[in-house]
Amino acid sequence: MAIGDALVDVIATADFAFVEKQNLPKGGMQLLSTDQADDLYAAMGPAREISGGSAANSMASAAALGLDVAFIGQIANDQLGEIFAHDMSSLGVRFETPPLQSPPPTGRCLIVVTPDGQRTMNTCPGASHHLRPEALDEKLIASASILMLEGYLWGPDLPRQALVRAIEIARAAGPEIAFTLSESVCLPGRREALTEMIGSGGVDLLFLNDHEALQLTGESDLGNALGVLSAKVRTLVITRGAKGALAVQDGDRIDIPAAPVEQVVDTTGAGDLFAAGFLAGRCRGHPLKACLEMGAVAAAEVISHFGARPEADLRQVVNL
Amino acid sequence: MAIGDALVDVIATADFAFVEKQNLPKGGMQLLSTDQADDLYAAMGPAREISGGSAANSMASAAALGLDVAFIGQIANDQLGEIFAHDMSSLGVRFETPPLQSPPPTGRCLIVVTPDGQRTMNTCPGASHHLRPEALDEKLIASASILMLEGYLWGPDLPRQALVRAIEIARAAGPEIAFTLSESVCLPGRREALTEMIGSGGVDLLFLNDHEALQLTGESDLGNALGVLSAKVRTLVITRGAKGALAVQDGDRIDIPAAPVEQVVDTTGAGDLFAAGFLAGRCRGHPLKACLEMGAVAAAEVISHFGARPEADLRQVVNL
Repeated sequence: MAIGDALVDVIATADFAFVEKQNLPKGGMQLLSTDQADDLYAAMGPAREISGGSAANSMASAAALGLDVAFIGQIANDQLGEIFAHDMSSLGVRFETPPLQSPPPTGRCLIVVTPDGQRTMNTCPGASHHLRPEALDEKLIASASILMLEGYLWGPDLPRQALVRAIEIARAAGPEIAFTLSESVCLPGRREALTEMIGSGGVDLLFLNDHEALQLTGESDLGNALGVLSAKVRTLVITRGAKGALAVQDGDRIDIPAAPVEQVVDTTGAGDLFAAGFLAGRCRGHPLKACLEMGAVAAAEVISHFGARPEADLRQVVNL
Repeated sequence: MAIGDALVDVIATADFAFVEKQNLPKGGMQLLSTDQADDLYAAMGPAREISGGSAANSMASAAALGLDVAFIGQIANDQLGEIFAHDMSSLGVRFETPPLQSPPPTGRCLIVVTPDGQRTMNTCPGASHHLRPEALDEKLIASASILMLEGYLWGPDLPRQALVRAIEIARAAGPEIAFTLSESVCLPGRREALTEMIGSGGVDLLFLNDHEALQLTGESDLGNALGVLSAKVRTLVITRGAKGALAVQDGDRIDIPAAPVEQVVDTTGAGDLFAAGFLAGRCRGHPLKACLEMGAVAAAEVISHFGARPEADLRQVVNL
């Protein structure tokens, strides 16, 4: 199960000049206020809306892979919230966090996809960052085999308190704690809080990409970053885009190549789907290398079309 | 410019068994009440949301083809309404119909796409059918060169009154009046009203598909249906799916083949895009055959992906 942002992605294509003119963090993520989001949306071209949220994407995909999955995240009582809830429950993800009954509205992520398939995310988190510790279903967390936490919530006071409480519950009850950085380390002031949390032994399984590993550790060499991070978590999983992925566990490092993709359309969700494939393998007791390979194949599926949710039958894709 | 339904499409894939179990009109359209729509939505798989509405699709695509375009349709003051309005204005479509300030919400079309690429539409029209004659921008209508009307609105009292008023304005001021059946003839009780309106000389340019031509005229032979209909409208345009399209104007009939498509993913919007391509040619003064060909190429683009709005640069596609 996972705790993360409950967002609807608003996905439009744009040329490189648009990204430059709007001063967007190409390939990265930034947080927007409601006014900033309204301005950017007004400037964007026609869009399609597809449910998103990093850990939510992972859980939706894990459900599509046949896992028994739950999600905790905060939506509002509005149309986008209904869309998010429908898309989760229609996949069999248990999603029962009560909607907020007052503003802000359900969060949106305005995603601009350039002709190279690269996505730039502009998140207006809305209700998502109003997740309170009291909204957690403690029994659900205690009964999980893996609890996945999303880095985006490890910043604002309220959702961070919710994650802290979830870690307490998990540590007492037994679930393995996975944490996904999901670009959150790029946010100003986020690095220190993340380093401290990971350093304090809060995480068993850490998902991040190679850039994030360098940013988080302050190292310029990936090998050094691996050394620093693998000393703090039992299993370290690093995605490297076209270069594939690697994992370090109990002192052993395994590298795998990326799965082949005919055409990269939209890289949104690559990391999230990788995590889903990896977790599906782990829950079934597969060896580390097989888990990485399942992650790579799931990631390849999602970058071949728009949106961060799988379109193909994932069970066939990862050969389950 | 056009007057039509202002809807957001909610598009999910499903197998043939789902269509049968839910008793959906495969390949066609049905109207749903809010409760029926909620039930069907709950049964549907994860979806993507893309702005729709038949004439709205045509106008969005005509704008993408470089035409100066406006649209009149009724949204509500809610998130789906914002999405619809954004997608129109971001393409340069003038869309200024004031949103409803009270229920019902913005309309949705729940679209189920089967593995053969066929779409089955289940429309919950919501605010869309609350379009009042007073909401029309009469100056805008009078200044248009073509006024396109959508058959779905020629049923319920309120929006039909709006269309009647629009025809009066157009007849006094000069715009050519186009009418698109868009499956509306399949609705119970709709045929008589449509026949009467077309028979009374309200339409200059009629868009429909071959099945609709047979249903509307009650003929079993397409040639006979052409004879009946072409006596009532100056230009008759009939789309025939994989068989191409034809037009009858001033006693001459022109047939063209369908444009090639690598893979049919989702036929939603084929007729709407055909109309857009055809109208783009007509507004530029191209001969009838060239208008048909532009329609065919635009239709081929939209059925190669999900959603009824073009994803490719339509100007390149139709070679403008």
